[in-house]
Amino acid sequence: MTITTPKGFKASGVTAGLKPSGKSDLALVVNEGPSQVAAGRFTGNRVKAAPIKWTQQVMTYGKLKAVVLNSGGANACTGAEGFQDTHATAEKVAAVLGCGAVEVAVCSTGLIGERLPMGKLLPGIDAAAAALTEDGGEAAATAIMTTDTVAKNAVVTGPGGWKIGGIAKGAGMLAPGLATMLVVLTTDAVIDAELADAALGTACRYSFDRLDSDGSMSTNDTVLLLASGASGVTAAPDEFISALSELCQDLAGQLLADAEGSTKDITITVSGAETEDDAVEVARCVARDNLVKTAMFGCDPNWGRILAAVGTSKAPFDADEVDVAVNGVWICKAGAAGESRDNVDLKGRAVAIDIELHNGAAQATIWTNDLSHDYVHENSAYST
Amino acid sequence: MTITTPKGFKASGVTAGLKPSGKSDLALVVNEGPSQVAAGRFTGNRVKAAPIKWTQQVMTYGKLKAVVLNSGGANACTGAEGFQDTHATAEKVAAVLGCGAVEVAVCSTGLIGERLPMGKLLPGIDAAAAALTEDGGEAAATAIMTTDTVAKNAVVTGPGGWKIGGIAKGAGMLAPGLATMLVVLTTDAVIDAELADAALGTACRYSFDRLDSDGSMSTNDTVLLLASGASGVTAAPDEFISALSELCQDLAGQLLADAEGSTKDITITVSGAETEDDAVEVARCVARDNLVKTAMFGCDPNWGRILAAVGTSKAPFDADEVDVAVNGVWICKAGAAGESRDNVDLKGRAVAIDIELHNGAAQATIWTNDLSHDYVHENSAYST
Repeated sequence: MTITTPKGFKASGVTAGLKPSGKSDLALVVNEGPSQVAAGRFTGNRVKAAPIKWTQQVMTYGKLKAVVLNSGGANACTGAEGFQDTHATAEKVAAVLGCGAVEVAVCSTGLIGERLPMGKLLPGIDAAAAALTEDGGEAAATAIMTTDTVAKNAVVTGPGGWKIGGIAKGAGMLAPGLATMLVVLTTDAVIDAELADAALGTACRYSFDRLDSDGSMSTNDTVLLLASGASGVTAAPDEFISALSELCQDLAGQLLADAEGSTKDITITVSGAETEDDAVEVARCVARDNLVKTAMFGCDPNWGRILAAVGTSKAPFDADEVDVAVNGVWICKAGAAGESRDNVDLKGRAVAIDIELHNGAAQATIWTNDLSHDYVHENSAYST
Repeated sequence: MTITTPKGFKASGVTAGLKPSGKSDLALVVNEGPSQVAAGRFTGNRVKAAPIKWTQQVMTYGKLKAVVLNSGGANACTGAEGFQDTHATAEKVAAVLGCGAVEVAVCSTGLIGERLPMGKLLPGIDAAAAALTEDGGEAAATAIMTTDTVAKNAVVTGPGGWKIGGIAKGAGMLAPGLATMLVVLTTDAVIDAELADAALGTACRYSFDRLDSDGSMSTNDTVLLLASGASGVTAAPDEFISALSELCQDLAGQLLADAEGSTKDITITVSGAETEDDAVEVARCVARDNLVKTAMFGCDPNWGRILAAVGTSKAPFDADEVDVAVNGVWICKAGAAGESRDNVDLKGRAVAIDIELHNGAAQATIWTNDLSHDYVHENSAYST
């Protein structure tokens, strides 16, 4: 149940030797058609890795034959030589598959600031092409893992039988160790480029864009959608958007649950905002507040810190009207103490923080994690 | 060498019984005149504690006879009752000193969301008034400590012999455990209200406003300046602004060095920005990035994380032109690897991160700390 579950796709994952561990580190995903419709979304970071610059150019053509992905090196902050390495990677894939380099997207993940060992990567592409199979999706998902503890795969089936599959690695804007979020989505539905792009935008907006584990933003985040049309079934736009959103939320949940060093999955829902953007901003202020995050790690329903974090936002609200619940207990009412904090059970991994601004009808949800000893440990020892 | 070093001031610090530890927790500072000129600056958090609301109203009159400060409770998020408690505190001080309540500023620090024990606080004010002396500044500095490990005092002397003294507690926007920054500044220089306000604005802008230990913002931050005019010497505006800025930077440095659980004092200087605001924004993005902060804790000169944090800012720059130095070694040049990271010595407490954007002539400095195991420990166990 992965990216090769929809018809028209082959994939593989092999060991090119980029990782000191010797684990698989190179993945190839090929769209066998008949369609090559594609869409992409990329990191908002203004420091963009070479593969981002390449793939953004490629996507201006709106179609993709293949995606090559490597772990073991982000190829970010590597200057003109790094871009040439990405270009050479795409050219090599094009030569092996018999297509143009502009039909090949490139994704990389790993440490920033170091050149990729091209003497290992290029032969690895031959091996990856030789290993392509119609059930290679899970091998691809495994090959793009960095600090992930599990490979991430998902599938949804739409009305009429078309399918969407997905793989993901890392934690995106959760950014553990800047271990980029890479997502490849495949579908055998018949869709045009316009629908692919619109659906991907909507699906990302309500899934990956709402993950915010530590507020950091990677140089390499990439989400790609490839449509083969091999099912022969044309998808209705609403149904396709709905199914793609569901799939992306599934993958986003897997990323959150695997965030480095976390002990809590925290769902922050802000209601009663004037606009959805206001609700998102307030939720992000809370999600990024280290004092809230450490309190959650300590199983401490410290609503004062939550309210203080809300107060750092620019969204309109009256501080004397805000209610806050933690795991269903409204411990802050009208900006002051409410129900007893002793009623809050924070022993489990799932934590729900609900914030009611009483200032409108809009709402939004952001998912985040706590700030733990292990987060500090893993991220202070990452590159040394 | 504290707030009672300038002429015309008395102060005290006593134990009212607000802290479970039994340590001193109530401070009183009185301006004996002849002038009562005063100025204030307050938290930007939109969730403001009761004493902030009170003191902001009081400051509209531009003069102060006294400041009463308590630790052991922030009186924030306590509703209308909390405001009444602050009002009663000011009235009590006014009655004891024989002045109006509108001449009395109130500052509180401690846990959010709980009412103050007024039955202890009000008798404490009698004790504090009885203990007022012309060398009580250090006792006042001690009484406002919460998680501070040392009391913070400073003095500067201006041309002509006038002096400015200061006390501070906590770490302000360093916000350890939301332990507010409270600062009281006193001077015996002859200044008018306009100069007091302008000087305080400038001094805060280049000192406390540039501290950003963990990005959090307290509900109670207060900086007050009281001028007695008792030296009889009129201060030249430029000289007063300069001396006050120097004093505030001294106190800011003491706050930074005492930030909870930190092992590094990090000075982030951004140069070559188009505007000073741009430089501040870039430096704050780096200061608030948990991946940069954990890397510093791990003594890891991970310039890729620094560059990625720069990339999250909205300031104009070209990512391929940015240089980054850590402790004087330019390990990133033109957005790619520069000198060897092995040359960077991160063993000491002081860390300098220099970022050259090559996009203008403006620069700014932000001071921050690392993100350590002890930060997580102290802040996950604070209120339980």
